[in-house]
Amino acid sequence: MLAQSYTSNVDRNLSELLFTELREKTSDGVGVTRCGYSEGESLALDIFESKAKEFGLLSERDAAANLVITLLGSEPDQPAIALGSHLDSVPQGGNFDGAAGVVAGLVILAGFARSGFKPRRTLKLFGLRGEESARFGKAYIGSSALFGKLTPIDLEAKAADNERKLVDCMRDVGAAVDRIAAGECLLSPSTLAAWLELHIEQGPVLTARQQSIGVVTGIRGNLRHRIVECVGEAGHSGTVPRWLRHDTVFASADLLMQLDRHWRVLLERGRDLVMTAGVFGTLPEEHAIARIPGTTRFSFEARSQNRDTLQAFYDLFQSECASIAEDRGVTFKVDRLVESVPALMDRDWIARLANAAISMGYPCEEMASGAGHDAAVFANAGVPSAMIFVRNQHGSHNPHETMEIDDFLIGLATLRAAVQEAAQ
Amino acid sequence: MLAQSYTSNVDRNLSELLFTELREKTSDGVGVTRCGYSEGESLALDIFESKAKEFGLLSERDAAANLVITLLGSEPDQPAIALGSHLDSVPQGGNFDGAAGVVAGLVILAGFARSGFKPRRTLKLFGLRGEESARFGKAYIGSSALFGKLTPIDLEAKAADNERKLVDCMRDVGAAVDRIAAGECLLSPSTLAAWLELHIEQGPVLTARQQSIGVVTGIRGNLRHRIVECVGEAGHSGTVPRWLRHDTVFASADLLMQLDRHWRVLLERGRDLVMTAGVFGTLPEEHAIARIPGTTRFSFEARSQNRDTLQAFYDLFQSECASIAEDRGVTFKVDRLVESVPALMDRDWIARLANAAISMGYPCEEMASGAGHDAAVFANAGVPSAMIFVRNQHGSHNPHETMEIDDFLIGLATLRAAVQEAAQ
Repeated sequence: MLAQSYTSNVDRNLSELLFTELREKTSDGVGVTRCGYSEGESLALDIFESKAKEFGLLSERDAAANLVITLLGSEPDQPAIALGSHLDSVPQGGNFDGAAGVVAGLVILAGFARSGFKPRRTLKLFGLRGEESARFGKAYIGSSALFGKLTPIDLEAKAADNERKLVDCMRDVGAAVDRIAAGECLLSPSTLAAWLELHIEQGPVLTARQQSIGVVTGIRGNLRHRIVECVGEAGHSGTVPRWLRHDTVFASADLLMQLDRHWRVLLERGRDLVMTAGVFGTLPEEHAIARIPGTTRFSFEARSQNRDTLQAFYDLFQSECASIAEDRGVTFKVDRLVESVPALMDRDWIARLANAAISMGYPCEEMASGAGHDAAVFANAGVPSAMIFVRNQHGSHNPHETMEIDDFLIGLATLRAAVQEAAQ
Repeated sequence: MLAQSYTSNVDRNLSELLFTELREKTSDGVGVTRCGYSEGESLALDIFESKAKEFGLLSERDAAANLVITLLGSEPDQPAIALGSHLDSVPQGGNFDGAAGVVAGLVILAGFARSGFKPRRTLKLFGLRGEESARFGKAYIGSSALFGKLTPIDLEAKAADNERKLVDCMRDVGAAVDRIAAGECLLSPSTLAAWLELHIEQGPVLTARQQSIGVVTGIRGNLRHRIVECVGEAGHSGTVPRWLRHDTVFASADLLMQLDRHWRVLLERGRDLVMTAGVFGTLPEEHAIARIPGTTRFSFEARSQNRDTLQAFYDLFQSECASIAEDRGVTFKVDRLVESVPALMDRDWIARLANAAISMGYPCEEMASGAGHDAAVFANAGVPSAMIFVRNQHGSHNPHETMEIDDFLIGLATLRAAVQEAAQ
């Protein structure tokens, strides 16, 4: 097996040791619980810190209380290469979501330190806090704080478990909350040459492709209407012929099928897009089998790593609404359009990671990330960013996530090869 | 105006007098309330009975306690021509739903009596009880009782207002409940040459066509599934690409649009059909904008006056379910199929009514009845049956139904002309 050449028992043993210690110390009996800016998360940071010290690596907490482990380069004034991911989890979450990227980073840095490899650029490993939105309703807290992106409203958010404010929880673990509240940029993007994040895939693509790893091309943003309301005319299901109907279920189904058609065309043209109406239905207070539904409500969400694709699809959504409204004698009303901006990964780093994988004989899928990641925060702050996804079954945010250690080691070897090339 | 030639102020005055008395005596402050086998309904019967006696017409209650007014023919052994409709209403209902047919019948019989017209066939006017399902959950009680079609379960049904059993309520108004419970046929179909029912239209067709009256070609039956469940696979709306989705909202929308296409094709071919999914939706307990819906449930109802069309459309429903299930990786599960049998109106009577209208210069739409009527009970018992619909706005089962008296008089004149032709 090719993987044998580039992964070693040393990698495997240290990785398994770290995953095991993490699981045991942050277990909640069902999964693991290490919520943002809570004890469980701090425990995870401590595990990596003490292990880093064993390997003679420098360790510190930054001004947002994230863990930073450093392997000094021979030219420390050059922008550093940053690795890492987040160490928090959702309540009763899985052990790999986030932590895998920090384990990979520590194994790489420890290996370099042990082998005496001295990079030109300094390497920094971040164990970020508060990436999950579960505790404060806000995601990417640890990375956003570094770039001065937390708002006063964010800082006043209360923890779901104990109602304590985020600003107080951050102070508890030593963050410089005054500087964060002032919106100060605590980490200048120009001091980083790259942000490299290994993470489990939270979707089914790599499993379906039978590939161990993927290189992420971008992190999807989205356009959303929480409620699209289709208003037509209720009526007796027996007495109103088709030509006099204003049936909102048929009109809404028509809209979805027209959008489905546009979606397929855009995919054929190589665009990145997914579309979902997660909530869809007639009104319970009007429910009757023999009633032509006069109102139907549904949610609209389009996601793409490309903002132009999002806008183009949204234009199609609007024109189909207008056309179907005319055809079927209904109206479509929308609530406020909410946008989350996509983040494209760095083309050079995508190529470097993909080439590293291919040169070691690992097939490597280029794919969009549908879920959000700290990498989007780094990318949108101007740091060239890239991600490796590792195959994982059963999604994420649950204790059943299943990442094979062999797949992880392939991701780790790929990341190491790319870092080694860029850092020396 | 042509109508002037065939309708008279005598017709108008008597009709308005009857409608006014009915409305005043059965008003509930909002609409009218004359529920099946209740005081309000009996009051309505009494109004017609006393008016019939004024005109020298025979009046009696049949074994199911319906009102029967008779104008004896010169050949009383010939099968009679029956006219009529129901005299009950839903609570807070409209004054015309049902009663219009009895008013028309009484005006016709009174006119014949007054003018000395002696038909060959006896004419019978029925003021039926309990047509609406509102009080006992069962429709067409008065007509079904006549043909021995009430089951023991029907008779045990309890009134929505006072929990009194139907059998007791029927006994209260003098019905022969023992004979009814025994399933005895109280009215031999062979004694009737026809059942002719004038009724307000409960849909918008005549209004849209700008026509006063329609002749009903058949009363739609239906095929129903209360719940069709589409089961796919839930997933994160961002991380699952289109090719790996099993989205049940898209699959169900696809099914509706395929059925919509078949529906249009069947209409083009002259078939009678309506289709409705009155209840449709994702599951509230799984609602999330960012979740690919793993389950969607909806009701399925197809109505047609033709049983073959219903079966053909149901076959299309099943084959589209199978095809979309395969395409989209979902399954469709259905609960018990419930059928209500259609009733075709008598071709000769349809022609006689239509010819009568046309010869008087009234445009006359041939149309299906989407709602059920006592005429379906008579037709399915073997009595040649026919119906005239009178234009009516705002549907029925509400106090806002709006029938213009001029339209009603056109329906009345048409019915009278056809009866006169057939009875003499």
